[in-house]
Amino acid sequence: MDASIVCGLHAVLTALQQHPDRVGGVWISVERDDRRIGQVLDAARASNVKFHRVPRVKLDEMADGLRHQGVVARLQVTPVAHALDLDAFVAGLEHAPLLLILDGVQDPHNLGACLRVADGAGVDAVIVPRDRAAPVTAVTRRVASGAAETMPLFQVVNLSRTLENLKQAGVWLYGAAQDAPEELYAADLTGPAAIVLGGEGSGLRRLTREHCDKLVRIPMVGKVESLNVSVAAGVMLYEAVRQRRGG
Amino acid sequence: MDASIVCGLHAVLTALQQHPDRVGGVWISVERDDRRIGQVLDAARASNVKFHRVPRVKLDEMADGLRHQGVVARLQVTPVAHALDLDAFVAGLEHAPLLLILDGVQDPHNLGACLRVADGAGVDAVIVPRDRAAPVTAVTRRVASGAAETMPLFQVVNLSRTLENLKQAGVWLYGAAQDAPEELYAADLTGPAAIVLGGEGSGLRRLTREHCDKLVRIPMVGKVESLNVSVAAGVMLYEAVRQRRGG
Repeated sequence: MDASIVCGLHAVLTALQQHPDRVGGVWISVERDDRRIGQVLDAARASNVKFHRVPRVKLDEMADGLRHQGVVARLQVTPVAHALDLDAFVAGLEHAPLLLILDGVQDPHNLGACLRVADGAGVDAVIVPRDRAAPVTAVTRRVASGAAETMPLFQVVNLSRTLENLKQAGVWLYGAAQDAPEELYAADLTGPAAIVLGGEGSGLRRLTREHCDKLVRIPMVGKVESLNVSVAAGVMLYEAVRQRRGG
Repeated sequence: MDASIVCGLHAVLTALQQHPDRVGGVWISVERDDRRIGQVLDAARASNVKFHRVPRVKLDEMADGLRHQGVVARLQVTPVAHALDLDAFVAGLEHAPLLLILDGVQDPHNLGACLRVADGAGVDAVIVPRDRAAPVTAVTRRVASGAAETMPLFQVVNLSRTLENLKQAGVWLYGAAQDAPEELYAADLTGPAAIVLGGEGSGLRRLTREHCDKLVRIPMVGKVESLNVSVAAGVMLYEAVRQRRGG
């Protein structure tokens, strides 16, 4: 499936509002005609994006199984940023950076869920190792609810070097590990910080662990062993949000 | 698909360890023979559960599209509890209850994700309205990673009445709403509390909102409008965990 297809009212509207220059066209079901479709039409007109009224079956074809709610857009694929730019990006931030590092999340759905919650918590950028990362697919974009089009995603070749560079730039690395002696709540996340999470089921790689300034665990009070990676990201990132608001 | 099929190493192992009496048999791929399969075999032997070595294709059939990693178990379906028992259940708890109420989560995958994080945060029970709830399917069980077999799930006929009964039992109802004036962090979650979340996209119903003692919002710092319901559950429930630990 074409990774540059965006499906659904919310994702298409977000794309039109936030970077119309990258939207190559919008296809709208002739069978739909309501307020939300009107919003999509207005947004397309306002930014001079071509739209096409087509039968629903055409959209089903374009969406290839994804839920499209009668709206599909063709998008220029996000240029994924690379390691060289990361140092400059972090140095250019005017506040204490909050970063999310995913060490081996291989499922496009989970990546999308992580991008969504990263955006929600105000993360500045998401960093993944290029050789162990999920591709940004149409599923990623749909699950990310717009965040795949706006959240800077750095695919780095050498994660260890990136972690070292971040530390030298003053960013503290907080790794999540179920065997960490201290709980998340013992971490001071008010300064420049990166939350480092392992992949589905496998946790952090040894080398990644060793680079972390502090390992913390999310308390597991019940019987399951771990949380889904996007839920873990949410719990940790929102602890940073809370601390940064003095909550 | 048979809702009593459990797939995958972790889910099957959890079932064998925690309620072997409800496991009706385990099927293991003859093509697999490693340490984790050994753990499943040991657990099955230890609890006198019958196991069968079968070709992988047989498992593919039983799992009906779900990822089974070479292991499938047949499980007696959890008896879902009903509203009448809920009052007694809550009254019988010897600590301040922490409950999760899902008002209209209709996707079995999301329900499973909510059960998993509810277990992680030590929730006592999950409550859903019977007529607006996702069914507990094989997908729910797989995503819940074992929590679907252990977390008490109350399906209530009249959610409004349940909310009123909980309030009379001293439980405070904290509803999540993006338009709430106060952030989550303003809520005192140390006492008897229920977190009330709306369904995918739709939020809380008006009547449910009105029953809540306090509405709070999770701050959305970026551009997306809301979090996935299981991520929102994680953020709110773990704020309760943090407060209850004096973190």
